[in-house]
Amino acid sequence: MDLLKEILSAIKPLDELAMNRAQHRLDSLTKPQGSLGRLEEMARQFAGITGEDFPAIPRKCVVLAVADHGVAEFGVSAYPVETTAEMTRNYLVEKGAGANALANFCGADMVVVDVGIKADMAQLPGLWNRKIAYGTRNFVFGPAMTRQEAVLSVETGIEVVCRLINQGYRCFGLGEMGIGNTTSSAAVIAAMGEFDAAAITGRGTGISDARFKVKLEAVQEAIRVNRPDPQDAIDVLAKVGGYETGALAGVILGAAANRCLVVLDGVNAGASALIAHGIHRLSREYMLASHLSAEPAHSKALEMLGLKPFIDMGMRLGEATGACLAMNFLDVSLKMLREMATFAEAGVSGQREV
Amino acid sequence: MDLLKEILSAIKPLDELAMNRAQHRLDSLTKPQGSLGRLEEMARQFAGITGEDFPAIPRKCVVLAVADHGVAEFGVSAYPVETTAEMTRNYLVEKGAGANALANFCGADMVVVDVGIKADMAQLPGLWNRKIAYGTRNFVFGPAMTRQEAVLSVETGIEVVCRLINQGYRCFGLGEMGIGNTTSSAAVIAAMGEFDAAAITGRGTGISDARFKVKLEAVQEAIRVNRPDPQDAIDVLAKVGGYETGALAGVILGAAANRCLVVLDGVNAGASALIAHGIHRLSREYMLASHLSAEPAHSKALEMLGLKPFIDMGMRLGEATGACLAMNFLDVSLKMLREMATFAEAGVSGQREV
Repeated sequence: MDLLKEILSAIKPLDELAMNRAQHRLDSLTKPQGSLGRLEEMARQFAGITGEDFPAIPRKCVVLAVADHGVAEFGVSAYPVETTAEMTRNYLVEKGAGANALANFCGADMVVVDVGIKADMAQLPGLWNRKIAYGTRNFVFGPAMTRQEAVLSVETGIEVVCRLINQGYRCFGLGEMGIGNTTSSAAVIAAMGEFDAAAITGRGTGISDARFKVKLEAVQEAIRVNRPDPQDAIDVLAKVGGYETGALAGVILGAAANRCLVVLDGVNAGASALIAHGIHRLSREYMLASHLSAEPAHSKALEMLGLKPFIDMGMRLGEATGACLAMNFLDVSLKMLREMATFAEAGVSGQREV
Repeated sequence: MDLLKEILSAIKPLDELAMNRAQHRLDSLTKPQGSLGRLEEMARQFAGITGEDFPAIPRKCVVLAVADHGVAEFGVSAYPVETTAEMTRNYLVEKGAGANALANFCGADMVVVDVGIKADMAQLPGLWNRKIAYGTRNFVFGPAMTRQEAVLSVETGIEVVCRLINQGYRCFGLGEMGIGNTTSSAAVIAAMGEFDAAAITGRGTGISDARFKVKLEAVQEAIRVNRPDPQDAIDVLAKVGGYETGALAGVILGAAANRCLVVLDGVNAGASALIAHGIHRLSREYMLASHLSAEPAHSKALEMLGLKPFIDMGMRLGEATGACLAMNFLDVSLKMLREMATFAEAGVSGQREV
């Protein structure tokens, strides 16, 4: 709890002066003002985060937090629970997952963190072992975890991201994997926004009508049984969240305290972002939305955060795959800020009275 | 006209067998089926275009066609007409435009083609001189160009893209620049879709209410005076289009005939795509939409083509800046197809009955 308190006290607003200087530069470049839209906003935000007018392209890392969910015993996913451990091996040994392809593509390194896989993973080379338990408990019958475990999961994310920041990373993509986690995230988002579960529960990995019925009832029952308090994000996390949900919330908070950018991904990262935002409102300033997932809860979570996604590819894989696409756009926004000529430099007529 | 006829007869449907084989591979990769959404569709489309199951990442080139518009004399842009020539120097000498930054970013080369700049550009090193005239005529008073000039502009684009294909390029980003061209594109799209000009004319470079009123009246008057025939795309191009509109339509047709992919950009590229589609329906199969421009006519053009943009950044610069973002996504889609492991390779449990 001391680590969490210490980190929260270090989260400050963005640097307005740096943002204004970046905006001034953006407005002088050879293009109609504002015509690069969100690319300009990204550059401005990153200037405010770093406090630099011309921030360098940051070293990037995907933090892929992996954990199992007790509710998976109901068969809420199209895949068996063993898939969580098998995919973890795929990330680290075969290196053949979507996460690997996308992280390679955007030039990000990747760390895979076991925060609660329901299998003994100690022999897996490269895995960061931070296991809190062998999966959460099934939240249909009571809280998924204790409040102490919830805090520990957040502090685990903080510890991981602080270690990476010490290694020189300044931009983090939020990745997660865990069979059953869109069920948990639907419950988290329903709880935080007081939404009707039926309006936001989706098909996750692509499930049948029969499985979907079970999934929806599990989300409804989780809320009814546990009565999570939307004013207390740790309570929501403990009652209906996952260990990876908490860990990624910790990554966000730790990154914000150290003036680093966090790039969101799909619905599960969205649930983590809501938890982080519930713990400290200013953490939002350090988030960048990426894509809009096919899961209905995702748009609700982003709306609550006041964030707008800018990629709509119908993706629903998680694993930071959407975050990687957006991290790539961050690079281009910073290149634009540095490489484009001003009207004066290029000898181009400026805008006349409009 | 012979070149155009020859190219049109060479445009064939996509290779269904290659697409099916690519789909089979996509479905066997370690992710829920379809969970990479549009990235999967892109890989499948490119397999159909090239006829290869595992197409290599193609060499990419931005074709930036530049021309002036007679209607610019009405002051429909926030920038003076000289900006067209000045920006052309910026692309080639200063290399400080948005087009340069974005093309560099996605690893595309760029050719800049003068098809109608209202200035003598012969001394500019690197410029491809294909000038048809010193800008179109003001279409408020009659056709922007003759039918012969319209065909010549399309054939110019075909000649340019065929030359680039001979050099080994297989993917083309559509770029354009020309003060006044969103006015022309609004007229082209209004004509092709028989839309009310008021519903689709936008603010282009970011103009005032006063200039917007002039712009809208110009579009309305252009349609009223010229009565372009939506069943005859060359007629629409000649009466209310631009030389760069025709040239980019030619790039599309030439690319399609040679089984290459064309990546669309904003509203002006959208007008060119409608012209190309009007000339040959199958050309659509070789197009990839990229971003959704802030210009209202853009979404109408894409709807008519049955194409869906997947990036929404509020961009409105043109110059292939949106196309470059999407070309980057093509790379990742092809890497995904090649680099991801199958369930069998990675020893991951397949999907159970859903």
